[in-house]
Amino acid sequence: MRNFIIIERIRIGRVEDDFHSNAFKAALAEFISTLIFVFAGQGSTMAYNKLTSNAPTSPAGLIAVALAHAFGLFVGVAVSANISGGHVNPAVTFGAFIGGNISLLRGILYWIAQLLGSTVACLLLKYTTHHMTVSVFTLSPGVTVWNAFVFEIVMTFALVYTVYATAIDPKKGDVGVIAPLAIGFVLGANILAGGAFEGAALNPAVPFGPALVSWNWYHHWVYWAGPLIGGGLAGIVYELIFMSHSTHEPLPGGEF
Amino acid sequence: MRNFIIIERIRIGRVEDDFHSNAFKAALAEFISTLIFVFAGQGSTMAYNKLTSNAPTSPAGLIAVALAHAFGLFVGVAVSANISGGHVNPAVTFGAFIGGNISLLRGILYWIAQLLGSTVACLLLKYTTHHMTVSVFTLSPGVTVWNAFVFEIVMTFALVYTVYATAIDPKKGDVGVIAPLAIGFVLGANILAGGAFEGAALNPAVPFGPALVSWNWYHHWVYWAGPLIGGGLAGIVYELIFMSHSTHEPLPGGEF
Amino acid sequence: MRNFIIIERIRIGRVEDDFHSNAFKAALAEFISTLIFVFAGQGSTMAYNKLTSNAPTSPAGLIAVALAHAFGLFVGVAVSANISGGHVNPAVTFGAFIGGNISLLRGILYWIAQLLGSTVACLLLKYTTHHMTVSVFTLSPGVTVWNAFVFEIVMTFALVYTVYATAIDPKKGDVGVIAPLAIGFVLGANILAGGAFEGAALNPAVPFGPALVSWNWYHHWVYWAGPLIGGGLAGIVYELIFMSHSTHEPLPGGEF
Amino acid sequence: MRNFIIIERIRIGRVEDDFHSNAFKAALAEFISTLIFVFAGQGSTMAYNKLTSNAPTSPAGLIAVALAHAFGLFVGVAVSANISGGHVNPAVTFGAFIGGNISLLRGILYWIAQLLGSTVACLLLKYTTHHMTVSVFTLSPGVTVWNAFVFEIVMTFALVYTVYATAIDPKKGDVGVIAPLAIGFVLGANILAGGAFEGAALNPAVPFGPALVSWNWYHHWVYWAGPLIGGGLAGIVYELIFMSHSTHEPLPGGEF
Repeated sequence: MRNFIIIERIRIGRVEDDFHSNAFKAALAEFISTLIFVFAGQGSTMAYNKLTSNAPTSPAGLIAVALAHAFGLFVGVAVSANISGGHVNPAVTFGAFIGGNISLLRGILYWIAQLLGSTVACLLLKYTTHHMTVSVFTLSPGVTVWNAFVFEIVMTFALVYTVYATAIDPKKGDVGVIAPLAIGFVLGANILAGGAFEGAALNPAVPFGPALVSWNWYHHWVYWAGPLIGGGLAGIVYELIFMSHSTHEPLPGGEF
Repeated sequence: MRNFIIIERIRIGRVEDDFHSNAFKAALAEFISTLIFVFAGQGSTMAYNKLTSNAPTSPAGLIAVALAHAFGLFVGVAVSANISGGHVNPAVTFGAFIGGNISLLRGILYWIAQLLGSTVACLLLKYTTHHMTVSVFTLSPGVTVWNAFVFEIVMTFALVYTVYATAIDPKKGDVGVIAPLAIGFVLGANILAGGAFEGAALNPAVPFGPALVSWNWYHHWVYWAGPLIGGGLAGIVYELIFMSHSTHEPLPGGEF
Repeated sequence: MRNFIIIERIRIGRVEDDFHSNAFKAALAEFISTLIFVFAGQGSTMAYNKLTSNAPTSPAGLIAVALAHAFGLFVGVAVSANISGGHVNPAVTFGAFIGGNISLLRGILYWIAQLLGSTVACLLLKYTTHHMTVSVFTLSPGVTVWNAFVFEIVMTFALVYTVYATAIDPKKGDVGVIAPLAIGFVLGANILAGGAFEGAALNPAVPFGPALVSWNWYHHWVYWAGPLIGGGLAGIVYELIFMSHSTHEPLPGGEF
Repeated sequence: MRNFIIIERIRIGRVEDDFHSNAFKAALAEFISTLIFVFAGQGSTMAYNKLTSNAPTSPAGLIAVALAHAFGLFVGVAVSANISGGHVNPAVTFGAFIGGNISLLRGILYWIAQLLGSTVACLLLKYTTHHMTVSVFTLSPGVTVWNAFVFEIVMTFALVYTVYATAIDPKKGDVGVIAPLAIGFVLGANILAGGAFEGAALNPAVPFGPALVSWNWYHHWVYWAGPLIGGGLAGIVYELIFMSHSTHEPLPGGEF
């Protein structure tokens, strides 16, 4: 029994030596969770196209895509929350950076991991769907690029504000369940609104993979500019107004 | 009984003087969370109109709208619960006031913030949807204004009773997750029922923004009178019968 | 400040004298939560009939009804869990009685409250929908009464087993969220299956209100016999095999 | 490395001798929870066939099936989590075995229980639906068996990775709610993607019952090979890279 425990300790120690930096482990967690999220989310769009032979989006189709993204993002956040903080989204990482809650270097590492995760998810979908088109994000007829731009700003503000209120703000105790639920649901609710108008990404990694794999960058900048501005704004607002920073180290037993 | 309410009102007022900026911070949180909630909820109605070119509501459309509101209200409550108590609804604020759980002054501040949040959400939707009509709440054919009135009373009773049971009643420990879930779900379930008959607001702020922006106040009073009566009734019933008041003040550190 | 607290103490004390038995308070909680649950659930069926002019059930209609019942039961359980144990269902009360977890007298009180709650919900729906038919539970073409009988046994076994595993069994610590979620979801999942064949009540109170208000008792016994047998069976199985009764009082610090 | 695994296997075997009846109780819990899960999940597919007279899958049908499986798996995991660990899936048991978190013997017992649970669920559905066909898993037109194979690998990797991150990894405190939610949602999200292409089992027990009862084993191997490879891979990846092993045995009372 004692031998077994000692052997295990050595093995884990070795693994730690190999990777030896938490940042890389966290980036890997971001890669995997973004892959899981985008695979299900983008896959649900392609499933709709498969079932309807590329019909225009119907209300049922919008529900399917919204639920897949809401459930998928819940999962992505839940599985990486304890390792990387559960960003799964360059706009969240940017908002956390703006508010001073992640370093520039680690943020860049996260971005690379998230974009890579989305790309690998799309490549896997390309193969598993027998080479269907990986659908890129587009604007519906009658929607201008500025409409979409403001849509993305407002919706990603909501998303990153939610991340701050439920996951970053230390007032909250029970981060484990409320944060992934609120983050998944704020995405799902907004896809049910914005999805009919301009796709509702709220996350530059989500349209990036499809754009790269389908090599179609038309209007792609909107899905970066909108979320980064909205996410950065949320970081500033929450950090300046609502964030509850303790002003001193809690004494053991001296504070609730 | 009358004395008690007056005394409490004074006490709350004094507390607010002490902490002072908390009330404005709380009102701002109500503004943002109502904006997030109404943007997704009202946006989902407009998304249905966009996708179907203003077809009459179908079961799939009702599901989409119910989910957007359920998810959106979950988020609205979750992000403001620790700052303002997560009302996001003038009927909840009124029910909390009736039960003696918020002061008149703070309640008025919340109302202004909630109505403003709904209005700004509708203005943003007006722009981002390229000037689509922001749909006001209406009665379905065959439904009288008194049917709708009682509908709103019953449904908002359910909502505010849920707020009391899961968020205000101090018996509950784990408010963090159960309250937003129950509050979001009680709205979603009732939209799946009442939504087909009279829109199912359960919240005067929700139809207020669209009515103001589209300047259409027909039957608008129903969505104030019903929720306020239902919410007030729930506050009285829960407070008198079920509320678990501790019989003495907890000593610091002396009780769990 | 001190005066206020003393006054409050007296008021609450008086209320307790009036009601003075927890059993009546619990029965009232069962009445209200069953009313809330049945109003939304049965209301969603009538909403489908309203939207489609009584079309046969479609997959979208089944989803709407399943979600309304899942969300509604979550709420019903959540709001009464701390007061009455959150039964909201005569079959749950019966299963709890069979396993020795509720007394006969209190059980009868709960049954009366639940049936009354369902009836009042249906009467309110009758009025608010402008006298639409309150739809009774029926068997689909090709489904025999014995098929439905076994369907109800299996599904209610699942429901009451879930109640035991997540709400009654004291092994579980975090009852607050897991129990209402699991109980709401097990109903929603089974409506998506059995709803297309025989309505999927899993709860005698749910078809009782409509049967009484529409005065149509055809096949009604199935929705009592099935759930009571399934629920009783679950009570016996869980109690005998899985229930973790502590065999002695835990010593402080001596047990996990 | 090899030594470590063999030693652990022996240790677990001994523990089982000590407690002995626990393994059978756990297997019974796996049987019941898999039965509950498959009854609702497979039942929802048959409900769609009943409502549409075997129409091809529509987006609404896919949503219904995804929700029934997501809710059903949530329930299956929640009701057995404290007794058997809540596997409800041979691929999860295999992934747990690969990572050294369950003994071979107990794993085999779980597999038998899970396959039996699925089979009994399908037999019950056969009776309660008045002898409808229990639908087997098939590939959609244009999807090759290798497409499906990789689909199942990726999706089950996501599922078992989620099990590790939310249920097995001891870093997590609040396993009770986050684990069943994340596991149910990762299944629901992936059915909304893969369900349109090859059924999306992520679980060999799910297609096993229908295949046995309908005696149709065409392409059945895909639903074993894919999930076992994906689940095993997830076990290895999480165990080697992310698992947080404590480096020493906790002293009783000495650690939180």
